[in-house]
Amino acid sequence: MKTMLANVFHGINDIRVESVPKPTVGPGEALLRITATTICGTDLHIVRGEYPVKPGLIIGHEPVGVIEELGAGVTGYNIGDRVLVGAITPCGQCRACLSGKPSQCGHGHGCQAMGGWRFGNTINGAQAEYLLVPYAQANLAKIPDEVTDEQVVLLADIASTGFGGAESGNIKIGDAVVVFAQGPIGLCATVGAKLMGATMIIAVDGDENRLKMSRQMGADVTLNFRECNVVEEVLKLTGGGVDVAIEALGTQETFEACLRCLRPGGTLSSLGVYSGKLQIPYEAYAAGLGDHRIVTTLCPGGKERMRRLINVVQSGRFDPAMLVTHRFSLADIKQGYEVFGSRSEGVLKVLITP
Amino acid sequence: MKTMLANVFHGINDIRVESVPKPTVGPGEALLRITATTICGTDLHIVRGEYPVKPGLIIGHEPVGVIEELGAGVTGYNIGDRVLVGAITPCGQCRACLSGKPSQCGHGHGCQAMGGWRFGNTINGAQAEYLLVPYAQANLAKIPDEVTDEQVVLLADIASTGFGGAESGNIKIGDAVVVFAQGPIGLCATVGAKLMGATMIIAVDGDENRLKMSRQMGADVTLNFRECNVVEEVLKLTGGGVDVAIEALGTQETFEACLRCLRPGGTLSSLGVYSGKLQIPYEAYAAGLGDHRIVTTLCPGGKERMRRLINVVQSGRFDPAMLVTHRFSLADIKQGYEVFGSRSEGVLKVLITP
Amino acid sequence: MKTMLANVFHGINDIRVESVPKPTVGPGEALLRITATTICGTDLHIVRGEYPVKPGLIIGHEPVGVIEELGAGVTGYNIGDRVLVGAITPCGQCRACLSGKPSQCGHGHGCQAMGGWRFGNTINGAQAEYLLVPYAQANLAKIPDEVTDEQVVLLADIASTGFGGAESGNIKIGDAVVVFAQGPIGLCATVGAKLMGATMIIAVDGDENRLKMSRQMGADVTLNFRECNVVEEVLKLTGGGVDVAIEALGTQETFEACLRCLRPGGTLSSLGVYSGKLQIPYEAYAAGLGDHRIVTTLCPGGKERMRRLINVVQSGRFDPAMLVTHRFSLADIKQGYEVFGSRSEGVLKVLITP
Amino acid sequence: MKTMLANVFHGINDIRVESVPKPTVGPGEALLRITATTICGTDLHIVRGEYPVKPGLIIGHEPVGVIEELGAGVTGYNIGDRVLVGAITPCGQCRACLSGKPSQCGHGHGCQAMGGWRFGNTINGAQAEYLLVPYAQANLAKIPDEVTDEQVVLLADIASTGFGGAESGNIKIGDAVVVFAQGPIGLCATVGAKLMGATMIIAVDGDENRLKMSRQMGADVTLNFRECNVVEEVLKLTGGGVDVAIEALGTQETFEACLRCLRPGGTLSSLGVYSGKLQIPYEAYAAGLGDHRIVTTLCPGGKERMRRLINVVQSGRFDPAMLVTHRFSLADIKQGYEVFGSRSEGVLKVLITP
Repeated sequence: MKTMLANVFHGINDIRVESVPKPTVGPGEALLRITATTICGTDLHIVRGEYPVKPGLIIGHEPVGVIEELGAGVTGYNIGDRVLVGAITPCGQCRACLSGKPSQCGHGHGCQAMGGWRFGNTINGAQAEYLLVPYAQANLAKIPDEVTDEQVVLLADIASTGFGGAESGNIKIGDAVVVFAQGPIGLCATVGAKLMGATMIIAVDGDENRLKMSRQMGADVTLNFRECNVVEEVLKLTGGGVDVAIEALGTQETFEACLRCLRPGGTLSSLGVYSGKLQIPYEAYAAGLGDHRIVTTLCPGGKERMRRLINVVQSGRFDPAMLVTHRFSLADIKQGYEVFGSRSEGVLKVLITP
Repeated sequence: MKTMLANVFHGINDIRVESVPKPTVGPGEALLRITATTICGTDLHIVRGEYPVKPGLIIGHEPVGVIEELGAGVTGYNIGDRVLVGAITPCGQCRACLSGKPSQCGHGHGCQAMGGWRFGNTINGAQAEYLLVPYAQANLAKIPDEVTDEQVVLLADIASTGFGGAESGNIKIGDAVVVFAQGPIGLCATVGAKLMGATMIIAVDGDENRLKMSRQMGADVTLNFRECNVVEEVLKLTGGGVDVAIEALGTQETFEACLRCLRPGGTLSSLGVYSGKLQIPYEAYAAGLGDHRIVTTLCPGGKERMRRLINVVQSGRFDPAMLVTHRFSLADIKQGYEVFGSRSEGVLKVLITP
Repeated sequence: MKTMLANVFHGINDIRVESVPKPTVGPGEALLRITATTICGTDLHIVRGEYPVKPGLIIGHEPVGVIEELGAGVTGYNIGDRVLVGAITPCGQCRACLSGKPSQCGHGHGCQAMGGWRFGNTINGAQAEYLLVPYAQANLAKIPDEVTDEQVVLLADIASTGFGGAESGNIKIGDAVVVFAQGPIGLCATVGAKLMGATMIIAVDGDENRLKMSRQMGADVTLNFRECNVVEEVLKLTGGGVDVAIEALGTQETFEACLRCLRPGGTLSSLGVYSGKLQIPYEAYAAGLGDHRIVTTLCPGGKERMRRLINVVQSGRFDPAMLVTHRFSLADIKQGYEVFGSRSEGVLKVLITP
Repeated sequence: MKTMLANVFHGINDIRVESVPKPTVGPGEALLRITATTICGTDLHIVRGEYPVKPGLIIGHEPVGVIEELGAGVTGYNIGDRVLVGAITPCGQCRACLSGKPSQCGHGHGCQAMGGWRFGNTINGAQAEYLLVPYAQANLAKIPDEVTDEQVVLLADIASTGFGGAESGNIKIGDAVVVFAQGPIGLCATVGAKLMGATMIIAVDGDENRLKMSRQMGADVTLNFRECNVVEEVLKLTGGGVDVAIEALGTQETFEACLRCLRPGGTLSSLGVYSGKLQIPYEAYAAGLGDHRIVTTLCPGGKERMRRLINVVQSGRFDPAMLVTHRFSLADIKQGYEVFGSRSEGVLKVLITP
């Protein structure tokens, strides 16, 4: 049996790069030789035991690679094609997919968190030498020669999620937008707001390095929450509230601040993953009672989504590689987890290559 | 000085029908001789001191009447025209109105509850012999001869709000919808869901009389929460959750049940007015994380909205007079408040006439 | 080799019911034993040579049947399940499908008419004892026991198209709508407008039988174009034009009349298949220049669409069997074509059973 | 009686700058001292007799000025405020305005071209020392100190229309868009497409100067129709058609080319004003039958629209002053018409100042 290296979750704070069987393709599947992947905040939650997965699972869900093998029925691709696959892999054929909710793929019963997310969650993931892609026909997005692996690997999850937050907020030309937290997803939401025509983008964080990056990404104003009353400042800057507030952290404080920053009739676009109960304070909610929207977005996937995001990179509108601050080999991925988890050294995203 | 009878709020649990000066019109205003009005749940909140207004205010916000006088600049109307005016009176000319949020009329600063609601809130209301209508050009909807005052008076608030809940939920042909609470607004939400093409409308209440009315209004299934586990039942009936859940009561329990009834990617359309903090339980929220929407709706007003609702009545699609269970004269309005407030005698809505 | 009966197109005005090989399933496919199908106006176009298909093709695209065989990879179904399949069979995995245009499935190059329509067009169709369904996972909709084959067979094409015309028109509660032509699709568009909350539905035709059926289906007003100036009448009835005009015939006259009936800013929803050049007369177009929309809709398919339409039938909102006026066996299908093609005997739809 | 200078239309090819009575304000109106205006292509149509207005009318509809006088009932403004007014002046209070179609303001009967356009059409216009603004409360947009008159004057019409074309097309992140004709409105449509996130913007014209400007404005590719087969080139560049085609000229050729450039299910956003019958060729229309949209847009006005467009300028996203190629005083406006009408000297827009 052929083997490959992979990063396997064995239990809380116990991941090991080890040799495991190399997968083989079934009908409708594709096998990729991974050329680039990365570590996501959700991977940290898994390693820390905050999000449960089965021991023995290969984790990671941001794959760029080369097609090594194609299962029966997958057409229009060749061995050797360089492709990007989204973190979420919709089948395209279930009720959720056919009703315009591909991120919720496979859920007929409303009882499972995280929708159609499979890689490194319910099946083996991308932190490995090879990756088996389900529903390959719907999920392999070819990468044009002009763009590098490093430029597209962040599209699989954080760019798709961050842009998705802006899109779900239905941002319009001339909108005022606030984005709470400027980690990788928040930074991508800032870029998304800019791409959609917002003209007053206010980025909030407590880390001056991130705020600096945020200005490079298109924020018009940055606010350090350690230095000012953010809600007051936003209401003043916008003359009564933003059209759209994007939450990209997942805390009660930022959720609530988003509500308080909204103009009457505005939209809160929530991207954070909250733990415990989330409270909607009456007086914040009642401000401009009615006509509010709160929308949540789970990372849109599928090859058409990836194609569009690759277009954004290819056109030069946005270079996600700017967010890659550190690089490790798969063999050294534990170091990558340490740096990424510690949020030291100005880390934003960590690139993992074979 | 001419006088008129009116129901004046003097303090908590102190309303009095008394003689007050009859108003006179200024530019852009109209004076109506009221021919029908009603008592709203919000009026009860005012009388009980749960929603603060200034002592001396005439309350009520659901006016049908005859034009008695027209201020300078109001064109296209004649003295004697029979008209309906919405509970909320948008000006049509402010930032909120011009950006498609007329219910939030006049709010530039996000700091005041209840948006553009003026009658019986910030200016004198409809429980009187005469009513001064601001921004008359945008707010007087002529009533065709074929429909009676009683048939249209409930359009001003509860039908506009209830239908609005269905509309904000973006209900589509073939949707499954649950409506929590079948008071007057919940019943109208049920009708709204039916009008928009929902094919499985589940109405929830604890009062069999209301559930019976609900079936007459178009509910396909009714559930008495005293007799079953509503969430379980809804998930079973729908094979995994409703497309849209409408909250028409304003409690933590019903809000939470709505979330738990949603299919992944579904919409919670919230109409209730909550007091205190509202909690979003993590495990309900995380069910099908992402792609949820929570929308709130404040009673849409303006003459075009009223014209459309009158069309619904005129076409025979819905007869709101079915919801009128009691009738009182303005002089006896206190009795009306007692019956309505006690929820006794199967009361749904109380009609007040001169 | 096993054989079956099928209606085969051999050339212009030359169709023959004959014995042909019974198909066998490949991966991802399903074989249905057809229990009900029908003849569509498009089939007439094929037989008359107005829409070209290859000689030797089995025609027909409205299948109801029982699963006889399932190909590899099709899950969640059992042999013997009774299912409905839409006229258009989206794969769910191509660029068009993944970008919300399943009716355009498989078209990467914009060069082929009729989008993802395959049955009786590019592959063998439903006027046969057995039918091979491609992309079965995305296209088999189970039929509940409570509804009959006859009640659902018209959902595959005419109801999905007719409702689609109303949906693309974005009809809202209180809208005024005109539907030009009350053939089967026009009648379904009338039903769709009613289901979505239109309150003034004006149905136009020249055949009193069809206008009578139209009133039964929910039209508020019917106009016989042989007896009045339809455009004038519509403008008078609506006080200046309809919100949505639905074209369900496919002629220059009706297209143009639709434009002339629109209020400024209204929507023309076009369902007809036109031949030759279509003209937009300047003075009609310029009436209310700007803010018009002209939308076209190709029969939405897929199992989720069919599930929703079956819901409409099951809930009792609409019984498509009302439109079935004639019944023939597959062996006698030529008689069915004659009656249907002649538009004699008050024919609306012809049911074909084994 | 006080007088002022104004450009008066006396008949075909007969405009004269002459002394006319200075207007005085009525209720709800404002008087502006014009500080900047411009000449629009529509003004040329008027002068050439192609669009009929009454002799004696002051023409022009792009006003920037200082408030000189305020009529009764206009609040929130001061004499001396510098303001921009849109070319179209919605009242905010009629059926069209209250139903979200302010450009169609005042049209109850569907019989008048050009919707709510009043300045230089049905009332005196902006090519004058002073301008009376109707519905001032809904139409005066304050100009921040940071931006100049010249930077905002083109927002009144061409930028609002051009952006409107992109907005009506519902452009999304990653879309491919073609814009036919790069005159002032086409250039603004190109900017609008860029602002909304299109990543492949193809600009078409026959004038290399305009194509050069187009690249500066954000076009990714420019095509000179004199040098290539535009439709073929667009289909090749996009792999099968654009998501949105914007027509900004008003000819049969460009309208038809737009249709032929669309992917199945794409949108044609039409901004041009056509003369004579417009033909939709069957074979272009049938390419990807169904799911097409053709939308037209009439310059959105009102103070909220203008506020948003001013935001775009203030944020530095777009400087419309780049399009101003020539400057004339009001006294010399006839020279401006000559240059603008001849399309000589690389003229794009002509600024008129007192």
